Formats: sequence, structure tokens, C-alpha cells
Amino acid sequence: MRGQIRNWLKKLFVGAMMTMGAMGETSLFGDEGMWLYTNPPIERIKARYNFEPSKEWLDHVQKSSVRFNSGGSGSFVSADGLVMTNHHVASDALQKMGTKDKNYYRDGFYAKSFGDEVKCEATELNVLMSIEDVTAQVNGAVKDGMAPAAAAGARRAVINKIEDESFKKTGLRSNVISLYQGSVYHLYRFKKYTDVRLVFAPEQQIAFYGGDPDNFEYPRFDLDVAFFRVYEDGKPAKVEHYLKWSKDGCKENELTFVSGHPGRTTRLATMAELEYSRDVGFPFLLKRLYRAEVLYTAFSARSEENARIAKENLFGTQNSRKARLGGQAGLMDPELMARKKAEEARIREAAGKNPEFSDVLNAYDAIAKAQKVRGELIKPYTMLEGGGAFNSELFGIARTIVRAVSEKSKTASEKLREYIDSNRESLELSLFSEEAIHPEFEIVKLADSLTFFAEEMGVDHPLVKVALGGKSPQARASELVLGTKIKDVAERKKLYQGGEAAIEASTDPLIRLVKAVDGEARALRKRMENEVQEVTSQANLKISKVRFSLDGTNTYPDATFTLRLSYGAVVGYEENGKKVPAFTTFAGLYERSTEQKNKPPFDLPELWQKRKDKIDLKTPYNFVSTADIIGGNSGSPVINKEGEVVGLIFDGNIQSLVLDFAYSDKEARAVSVCSQAITEALLKVYDAPKLANELATGKAGE
Amino acid sequence: MRGQIRNWLKKLFVGAMMTMGAMGETSLFGDEGMWLYTNPPIERIKARYNFEPSKEWLDHVQKSSVRFNSGGSGSFVSADGLVMTNHHVASDALQKMGTKDKNYYRDGFYAKSFGDEVKCEATELNVLMSIEDVTAQVNGAVKDGMAPAAAAGARRAVINKIEDESFKKTGLRSNVISLYQGSVYHLYRFKKYTDVRLVFAPEQQIAFYGGDPDNFEYPRFDLDVAFFRVYEDGKPAKVEHYLKWSKDGCKENELTFVSGHPGRTTRLATMAELEYSRDVGFPFLLKRLYRAEVLYTAFSARSEENARIAKENLFGTQNSRKARLGGQAGLMDPELMARKKAEEARIREAAGKNPEFSDVLNAYDAIAKAQKVRGELIKPYTMLEGGGAFNSELFGIARTIVRAVSEKSKTASEKLREYIDSNRESLELSLFSEEAIHPEFEIVKLADSLTFFAEEMGVDHPLVKVALGGKSPQARASELVLGTKIKDVAERKKLYQGGEAAIEASTDPLIRLVKAVDGEARALRKRMENEVQEVTSQANLKISKVRFSLDGTNTYPDATFTLRLSYGAVVGYEENGKKVPAFTTFAGLYERSTEQKNKPPFDLPELWQKRKDKIDLKTPYNFVSTADIIGGNSGSPVINKEGEVVGLIFDGNIQSLVLDFAYSDKEARAVSVCSQAITEALLKVYDAPKLANELATGKAGE
Repeated sequence: MRGQIRNWLKKLFVGAMMTMGAMGETSLFGDEGMWLYTNPPIERIKARYNFEPSKEWLDHVQKSSVRFNSGGSGSFVSADGLVMTNHHVASDALQKMGTKDKNYYRDGFYAKSFGDEVKCEATELNVLMSIEDVTAQVNGAVKDGMAPAAAAGARRAVINKIEDESFKKTGLRSNVISLYQGSVYHLYRFKKYTDVRLVFAPEQQIAFYGGDPDNFEYPRFDLDVAFFRVYEDGKPAKVEHYLKWSKDGCKENELTFVSGHPGRTTRLATMAELEYSRDVGFPFLLKRLYRAEVLYTAFSARSEENARIAKENLFGTQNSRKARLGGQAGLMDPELMARKKAEEARIREAAGKNPEFSDVLNAYDAIAKAQKVRGELIKPYTMLEGGGAFNSELFGIARTIVRAVSEKSKTASEKLREYIDSNRESLELSLFSEEAIHPEFEIVKLADSLTFFAEEMGVDHPLVKVALGGKSPQARASELVLGTKIKDVAERKKLYQGGEAAIEASTDPLIRLVKAVDGEARALRKRMENEVQEVTSQANLKISKVRFSLDGTNTYPDATFTLRLSYGAVVGYEENGKKVPAFTTFAGLYERSTEQKNKPPFDLPELWQKRKDKIDLKTPYNFVSTADIIGGNSGSPVINKEGEVVGLIFDGNIQSLVLDFAYSDKEARAVSVCSQAITEALLKVYDAPKLANELATGKAGE
Repeated sequence: MRGQIRNWLKKLFVGAMMTMGAMGETSLFGDEGMWLYTNPPIERIKARYNFEPSKEWLDHVQKSSVRFNSGGSGSFVSADGLVMTNHHVASDALQKMGTKDKNYYRDGFYAKSFGDEVKCEATELNVLMSIEDVTAQVNGAVKDGMAPAAAAGARRAVINKIEDESFKKTGLRSNVISLYQGSVYHLYRFKKYTDVRLVFAPEQQIAFYGGDPDNFEYPRFDLDVAFFRVYEDGKPAKVEHYLKWSKDGCKENELTFVSGHPGRTTRLATMAELEYSRDVGFPFLLKRLYRAEVLYTAFSARSEENARIAKENLFGTQNSRKARLGGQAGLMDPELMARKKAEEARIREAAGKNPEFSDVLNAYDAIAKAQKVRGELIKPYTMLEGGGAFNSELFGIARTIVRAVSEKSKTASEKLREYIDSNRESLELSLFSEEAIHPEFEIVKLADSLTFFAEEMGVDHPLVKVALGGKSPQARASELVLGTKIKDVAERKKLYQGGEAAIEASTDPLIRLVKAVDGEARALRKRMENEVQEVTSQANLKISKVRFSLDGTNTYPDATFTLRLSYGAVVGYEENGKKVPAFTTFAGLYERSTEQKNKPPFDLPELWQKRKDKIDLKTPYNFVSTADIIGGNSGSPVINKEGEVVGLIFDGNIQSLVLDFAYSDKEARAVSVCSQAITEALLKVYDAPKLANELATGKAGE
């Protein structure tokens, strides 16, 4: 999976619950679960693997885990603030720091000393420092009999208040997290790092070896790793918690842990939600993805520079397309849907028998109705609020300015969530980033999305007319992109600081366009939140109570891009009657390249061709395990019982795409880079003994 | 344009009429027109270029022109049956004759003697021998006051009768062609060649140099040529009419002619039809194209063999996507649509003033209503009758068998057009072709199209349920493709010859599937023909009468994949203020390759790298002219006043995509290969002096 991309697809919730497994007393199956650090499955692990992680073990791993806010996971791997993640999680930052002359993303990079480490634009890392249960406070704000809109408002207000107060008190980034479909609310406090510098990245060619064709496949041969260092006050940060490095990695059948940030599962979703996804949500999303993939592919084909500019968009789109097609295949599998139906019947039956749950059947109806509304809203909502009509970074910047200004004077409870005070610093970091914007690509994307807007809503729709301004999509896109001044960061600051008056007086064509469509965009968002999300969330809360009454609380909540602990064994699997072994080796990499005539995306970087003789080809390279992961887990460390890094999660195999809906250990596997492979590559390919030494000793050598 | 592909898009009619040009007495503009050989624009050519083609000149060029029934044009270029066309017109045949070991399509081919020439599977060439006006007979069958369905039936019956009688009388393939929106019907008789052998093709790399990125672009550097030879009774056919070869090609500003088979324009379409295309037809078609392009791209990426199998599908889809996006851009251009609207207002106004045309305003309403019906039908029609639900060659074969059997006993007037007796030979040729079928590709295509079917029509649609048979799309596709026996030509023959009884008794899963959906597919086709095409065609006939009353008959009908004569001057154009010259040279080819680091699709074939020193780099390579062409013209000869070949049409530039709706000579250009470049390449690159000599002398050397 390529978590940072899935992230922008958060709007699409698909998921479901496992039917009864073979484990007896619980509904869980094998190594299932993305567990909260406040509720780790100690008994299950002990029973299955005869190992009991201590409180200290858990606390240490939690505080060694890092979240990339761009969407992905990582971990501290030295006392001097060294952070390990995937190349594909780093790619956002690598792309941004690239220039026409220096392509970090494609060519890789290694800083031999602190002084050589390159600062990343707009990169923010978070470390989870504390967890507090605030369920009573949040639910207390919602009174019985409140209308959905009022309930949503009340809940939003109290959440904003809790977050603001926590931020003011501790100075830590504070977020209230909804868990178990809204049964539980936790306040998470994060230590935030915004001075993040690049230490090492390999060539994209070896990090994403096999490209889209090998994505989600196994056996695999990717060195999908990158190292950053966090700084405080201009110096490498000293961190108390970091993971030690395992030189020898893991063995077959070994128990391993994954600590990371699975983005989103909705394994508890009702049939109505699954059917919405299958019939409306996925088809519409796939339609957009197909269109975008063709657009980016065609643009990239015109020149090498174009390909560099669009590469991340293209890979992200291909990745999402493959993932969503896998999901849709699951939803179209009558067997899987029958299991889901049976599980729902079990809950409905239990609800029918217990007077305490008398309103639960109504809750199912309410969700079904909300999904209908969702189906009606999804197109205009996606177009106007989701940016479907305006596929342009400049449009996004213009909207952020206009909204930030208009939200400023509002009370915390009235504000759109992304504009509350505790987010302001992050927001400004990204808004005033000097990251390059490519007008030609902007025009291509905007012209296409304006065309799509007109096709989907009709050329006579009033907002389509406003968006096109009496011109063809191509001419209009050109006018907007070439005409706007917000390509210049100084101009953004002027408008942002100038407040309502500056916005009102602005003749910038993009600012004016944002203003013209923002009323409708906000109205659609409000409807989506109140009539769909809030209704569904309240109804799911009722349903989840029945489930809790059946299965107890000894379970895990759906993924929410917050820190979780998964575990599993390093084991291969069978596919069409053939055994797929758990490990690949460097020798396999060279074989695959030969077999594909070293043609892209199966070509080896020059350095890997030259250094072949130096490398120990028997070194384990990638491996699979049964850990329960999903997009967002990219970059998660794989840890042994001693708390050492034995690997680095970077993908799931094709059979794992169904994990959105249901855990399985039959063929679904998490795919990782072996820690030994990273060491071997640093020493033998990249002449980076100093970095390898920092991993081995936990200390930078300068 | 890549005509053979556009051909399968025939269902989508888009077009419109030019508004008044600057020429004074007629509504035509510059070198506009795809003229009938029965009505050549002699006066216009004479006035503009001071040249008057004689009757003999016209007759000779007509009979030297060749139609590729797979969709494309060609010409005889020697007395010994040598036929010139584009590599991309030949590609269908080249692909089919390819094997895992010998890739004609990719690697090219040259037969040094007759004995080396390779027979093509299922390739049929037609030469137009005579033209007869049958308007009175056809229109005479439709009585005043007939309901649309009855009128369509009556017309179909009389057309089938004329065709059958002509075929029986002359033995020539006979087709009644509808022209001027059904104002005129011509009976065309063709000499048919079915023994077609490959003589020469260059590497696909040089034929389609620059690939999709350079497709529809100019300057251009493609050697998009191939030579076939037609045989009769196992010997090279002796042909009376063939075009002589110009060693020196054409010069800037020179008058040239294009004789070929433009596939489809609908420049006379009403606003309702254009709006249908813009709002419904194009978006739905593009949705399918985007999906198919991603499917083929992803499949191709997995291995070289996959890429070979899917290459033609992929290029075709990319080409159609680019072309349709260009068309949609035109329809979304408010200026162009305003011109169309003004033209329609002109006709409406004239109709309002003349009592003879009292029913013309109703005709506009009838068309508008028919377009609504079309919008309602297009999805199920495309899915079931257009094959959208069953993207599989095997499904197509199964359907042809089932339909051929059930149509057999019907009268000529009752038969579906493609099953009438005069088509039977061609149909059997293609049905019993030994062309390779690739099960893995079939499964991938079918699984995807079944998914699309379920998404578009809903999983609970009765025919979706039938199509899926209680399985997931992937499992069902696998079952159908692996289970069917019609991969075997003998099995096809058995069913075809076994008649109704054999079909009824067949347990072949694909035959059963075809039978299960065929009733609904036929019903949708009938509705589309009667309620949309017939209504629209009758109404357009009324409207076209007004137009004739205004503009006279000195004009050309929309393209219908029948033989036409276009003409134009060899001239460059201006683009964004920069001058684009009319000619490129071989030197330019090598420069482009260097600039793109010789990376695909800008890489030169090995032979071209080796022979660079031998080639005269100043040789003109590609050129542009103002001739009015469209998809289907691919492979048309470009001819000078002496009737000699000076070039070979293979594309239009991006600005020419608008020619679907309206002729323009501002930037729109036809793109051709220079005859000199072909000679130079044969001599200096391909060591083919014998073929070059045959072109020069008009006689094969053996």
C-alpha cells in the first residue's frame, strides 16, 4: 500500500467485521487486530506465541513510533533523532525539494554529515506522548432528543474546546479521536517536529522496483526505505525513546510486531454502507482515478521533466486504482457479501431479542437512508468540496487563504475543523511553503477537471458557468493559472494577513473563483456531515452496543490513522497451489532484472549493477507476515520480542486488499524490507558506513 | 488519426456544419470537402488552383483506390497488385500473423520474392468499380404516413433486396450507401480481394515513432507505411489501374489530392445531437476509454509478451481517447457552439418563411426527443448490443455463431444487416480465422467488463445476474474463458453448421450466455434503430432539404467510410505565434531522438542507428496539407496533378480533431509521409531495391 496516497481517499469508508473465527471465545481470527496501546491483546499473544509484552515495552515502542502527517508511519532508530520510514512516504518531501538539476526523488541522496542534511519543506512529524479517555465529556455534550445537526454541532464544539484547552495547557498538538464507531473518544497529545531533514534515500528505481506492475504483488524486491533526522533549535533532536537495530533480522515463523498508523478500515460497516460503496462510491471514485491516471500518464509521456513533475501523482493514482479495484472485487464477491449479511443478521437478531436494544433496527434504517442521501450528495460534494472540479494546487492554496481568513473570527465551535487554532501552525507551514508549482501541469489538471465538472453537473449548472466564466475549460484553466498571483508566497501572505478586506478587494481570478463557489461547497459539506456522517455515526453507536454485548470489549476499533499495534508471524502462503516463500533475497532481485531484460520498471540503478559483486546475494531482502495492516502503516517498523527493528512495512500483497473489509491470514500478507538488507545496502552499495553505524549503535558518529 | 480504431466508434455520431465562409456563393470554406467521385468540385479546384481533373483522371484514381475493410484506405501502386497503406492500418493483420517467436508488428518484414510474401488472416480489400443512384427505389419503398418503425423496415427491406440482386447479377460485393443524411442513396459495387499477402512493413518503432505522446502532433517523424500484394488464383493479381510513383514528391504550396475513405463526420448535426454528444455520448464513451486504457496499460506492464498481446488494443484506445477529448474540447468551446447555433437559426428561419418547409420545426423537435431516448438507451445498448459488458473476442465469436444460425432462415428484409447473404463470405472468413486468442488477456478484459456491467446496471439487474451466474466477475470470467470450446475453430464450424439444433443442445458456457442475453440485446438494437436512428434520419432529411434550398447541391455529404476525393495545398501554419513549417526531414528525426535520449517511444530501431551515415538526411520526411480528412483516411495516397503518389496520409494534427464538426484551414492539417522518404528508406535502410524498383517502374521484377 502507499499510505500517503490512500490518505486523500479518506472520504471513502468501506469496511466490515469478521464473521466468527475459529478461536472460540471471541469473534477474532488468527493474528487479527490493529490494537490500541491502551488495550493491547496481551492474553491473545501470550496464548498463541507464549510472549507477554510488558508495560515498559509497550510504552517504549509507542514513544519510538512516529507519524508522518502527510500520511504514513515511521520510527526513531537512534538517540540523535534519526527517523526511518519508506521511500514512498518520504516521496512527497523528496519531490518538493527537487529541482530541474537535482532530483532527490529519482536519484536518491546521502548526507555524510549533519551539515549536508537537507531541510524538507512543509514536513511535520508527530509522536504520541499521552492518551486520555474523554468519552464522558464528549458524549455528555449531546443531550437526548437533540436533532442530528444540533448533536453534531454540540459534539464538534466540545471536541474543539477539549483540543484547544489541552493545547493551551501543554503546548502539545492535541486531537480528540473517535474510536469504536463513536463509542469511545480519546484525547491524543503529540510532540510535534517541524524541522525535518533528509539523511538518506535510495534511487526511486530500487525503492519502487517493479513499479506499478509489481505493486501489491509478491515475491517482491524493493528497498523502500528513507531516513530523516528531526532537529530542535537547529540541532539534531535528542530523543529518549528509539528502537534498536537487529543486524540479523527475523526468521521464518518468528513472532513480530508492527507499530504504526493504519489509515482507515471500516470492518463494522453495515450492508447499506457496503452496498453504497459497491454501487455508488467505488464506481464514482474509480471513474475519477481512471481519468486521472490517463491524464498523468499522457502528460508524463511528453518529456522527462513532465514525468518528474507528475511522477508522484501518477504513482499515487495507480496505487489507489489498484487498491480500490481490489476492494471492489471483494464487494462483488457473493461469498464475502453473504458472510457480511450473516454477521448483520446475527446483530439484528440479538437486537430483536433484547428490549434494551429496541431502537437498533431503526438505526439500520437510518443508516440506509443516510446512504441514499450520501449517494445524492457525493457528486456535487466531491466536485465542490472535495476538489474534483478544481484539480489544482493553486486552487487549494486560494481556498485555504479565503477560508482561513473567514474562519479566523469565528468561535472554536463554529470553525471548520481544519482551521481551529491548534492546527494553525501546521496550516501556515503548508500554506507558505516555497514548494515549486508547475503552471503547465496546473493548466492540464485544471482544464481536465473543469471539463469533468461540466460533464458531471451539466454546462448549464450555475456553478459550472461561474467556474468556466464563458470560456472553454482549456482557455479558462490557462487564464486562471497564468493570471493568479498566489504562485508568489509573498502574495499569499499579503492576502492572509490582510483579512476580510484584502480578500474582498482582491481581483485575483482564483480568489474570486473560490469565493464564488465556496458558499455551495460549505453547504454541501454541512449536509454531508449532518445528514450522512452524523446520522450514520449515531446509528452505528447504537449498533456497536449490541456487538459489544455479544463479543465483549476485548476487541480493537477500526483504523483511524492513529497509533496501533499489530502482530503476526513471518510465514509464506499458497497461491493457485504453488508455495510462495516468506523471504526473497538480493539474488532474486538480480534474477528478476535479467528475466525482464533490465527494462523499466525492472531496470536496476547503475550503482546496483556496478556493486553486484560486493553484495552478499544470499542476504534476505523482503519478507511477508500475517500482521493486520492497511494503508497508513507504510513506514511502520517491524519489531521482534526484544523491541529491535527487524524490518520495515511497505506494502501488502494483492490478497491483502480485502483487509479493508475483513482480516484474513489465508493468503493476505504484509510485505516488509528486511533490516539486514538495509544494512547490507548501506554498506555495500551506498558507501554509508556512518549511517549503518548509527543504526547499529543508536548514536550518530559526530 | 488511426482509422481502423475509430471505426469501432462509429456509433458515436458527432458533427456539424460550417457557418458561411469567405468564398461568396457557397457555404464552403477554403479547401473544404470530402467529395463524391460522382460530383467532384471541378469548378472550385479550377478557380483556386487553375487545374481541371479530367473524367479519365478521376476514373483512374477511383479504381486505383483501395479500401481495407478492417477500417482504412490504400492504393494500388504497381500493375502487379502491390498495395500501399499505413503500418497502423496494416497493424491488425501484422498482429494476427505474429507468434511468440516472430513479431511482424514490432520488428517489421520484407519479402524478397513472391514466395516469401506472407498470407494475412481475415483481411479483405475492396475496390470501388461502379456507382449507381438508387435514391428513387429506396425512397419509393417508404410510403407517406408510415410509422417510423415501419418506414425503417421498408427501407431496410428494399436495400437488402437491391444489394442481393446486384450481388447475384454481378458477383461483386454490393452495398447501398446513404448520403446527404438520407437524401441520396447510391449502390456501390466493389471488387473484393481476400488473398492478401504482406510484402513490407518497417519496425513499429519507426512507423509510430513518438508513440502516443506524438500522436496527433506536428512536427512529426513517422514512417507509417506498409505494402501488401493482392493475389488471385494463387498468383499476384494483375490490376488495370494503379498510381505511378513520384520520386521527388511535392513542394511547398503545391496542389495535392487525397483519395480515401473518411470514416465518419456529421457536420450537419443539429444542436440537439451536438448537445447529446457533449452531455451524454462523449462522457460515457470517454469513461469507457479511460477504463480500457488503464486496463491495457496495466496488463501490458506485467511482461513483454503481455505488451505484445495488448499493444494494438492499447494504442487504439489511446488514440480514440485523444481524438474524443479533442472533439469534446470543441463541443465545450462556447465560440464553436455559438457558430453552430447561428447556423441552426439560419435554417430554422428559412424554414419558417417557406410554407413548403412547414414541418421542419417539428423535425427539430423530433430529433431532440430522439436524442433523449438515445440518452436513455445508450447505457444498456452499449453494454448488451455494443459489447460493453463482454469485452472478449470469444464472446464476439459466440454471438456471431448464435446470430448467424438464427438469421439464416429469415428473409433478406428480416435479417440483421451484417448477416445478409452478400456478407456471408466475409463473415465466415473472420469467424473461422485461426488467429490466436490469448486466454489470459480474455479473462482480464472480460472480468473488467463484467464488473463495469454490474456497476452501470446494478448487481440486481436480471441480466447482470445471468452474466455473473452467482460468481464474482473474476471467477465468472475465468470460468467462461477456460470453459468454452470455441477457442477451437473446428468447434465453431460444428456449431455453425449444426444449426438451431446444435445451438440449442450446446452446453458451451459462452454460447449459453449469448443466448441468455441476446433477446434483450436485439430489443435494444431495434429500439435504437427505430426510435433514434430512423427518427433522426427522417427528420434530418427534412432539414437537409432546407439547407439544399439555401446552399444548392454543389456540396459534399458527410463522411460514410466510402470513397471520397479531397484536395489541398502543402502549407505550414502558425501555432502560439510560432511558425510550423510544412516539411520535416530525416535530420529532424535524429535530432528528436537525441533530444529525448533515445528513450521509448522516441528510440530509433537498431537499423536506423546503424544506417544513419548512408541516409541523405536532407530528404523530406513528413509534410502537412490543408486537405479535408478524417479517421478512415489513414493510408490514403496523396496525389499530384499528374496522378502520381507524392505522399501517404497517416494522421491529422491536434487542431484537426475539430474536423469532426467543422472544416478549418487555420491550423488544422493532414499529416503525410513523403514519397521520397519511402524510397530513401527502402534503398538505404531496408536493402529493398527490388520493392523500390517496383514502385519506380510500376512492375514487379520477377
